[in-house]
Amino acid sequence: MNRAHPDLDSLAFLVGTWKGTGSGRYPTIEPFEYVEEAVFTPGPGKPFILYRQRTRRAGDGEPLHSESGYIRPGGTEGAELVIAQPTGIVEVHTGDLCGSRVRFRSRDVRLSPTAVEVSRVERCISVDGHTMLYRLWMAAVGQPFQVHLEAELTRV
Amino acid sequence: MNRAHPDLDSLAFLVGTWKGTGSGRYPTIEPFEYVEEAVFTPGPGKPFILYRQRTRRAGDGEPLHSESGYIRPGGTEGAELVIAQPTGIVEVHTGDLCGSRVRFRSRDVRLSPTAVEVSRVERCISVDGHTMLYRLWMAAVGQPFQVHLEAELTRV
Repeated sequence: MNRAHPDLDSLAFLVGTWKGTGSGRYPTIEPFEYVEEAVFTPGPGKPFILYRQRTRRAGDGEPLHSESGYIRPGGTEGAELVIAQPTGIVEVHTGDLCGSRVRFRSRDVRLSPTAVEVSRVERCISVDGHTMLYRLWMAAVGQPFQVHLEAELTRV
Repeated sequence: MNRAHPDLDSLAFLVGTWKGTGSGRYPTIEPFEYVEEAVFTPGPGKPFILYRQRTRRAGDGEPLHSESGYIRPGGTEGAELVIAQPTGIVEVHTGDLCGSRVRFRSRDVRLSPTAVEVSRVERCISVDGHTMLYRLWMAAVGQPFQVHLEAELTRV
């Protein structure tokens, strides 16, 4: 029932459950360290990957961020990402796919009326064996586009 | 760790795992019957509800649709919904909340480059005890705005 769709071959490097640690920074907040679990699951016989992640603050384990969305193969750049965040944000990305590395650049970031302003997001995900590195850039709350998150995860 | 945030009181009627059946129709497709599981989970100590659902075709159990997103209390109408779909669609809704009924109307529907065109979505969810009725209206692929899905689910 849970066989991966053949169109997912180019994105198979993402599939699995990943755990590790990361750090965050932005001009408007104190730098912070976090632990993360990210899960990439092939759709049941469908050409998409369900993506979910959760972070907790390093040390006390306080829940920080979570998000969920779908990665789709195809398009002129090789991949697409649609994502929703509990902070009231949705994003549509196209992903420049090259081997086991993909860089998603936001085409659209849309906000619910009470969400904090975010205008642009990029995510680079690189997998080498069972190690995933990712970096996230963001332009938000009037600040220039810059690195917000960096993490290293291991496939478990 | 999984205590619900007090701001979620107004949306507590949604929380739970719901199963049932529904029917779908649209001018461009054959009418269909489906079985559904929908899960509404309070964020861990945070003011949002994680929403996930999956449908399968009645009869052969073939996977049909899935989606995931977040419901937030607040705003002038009482609720907000952000959602991502594996078909390459994201939606931002405001929700007119009245007792144990909420009607979400899309403010923004955004598409990835390879997604099928959808321009407007509304979702009405009504809970009476352990029964949830929902209806979904949609304007898509050039068709006028109309009912697409109707279902009745039971809290399990």
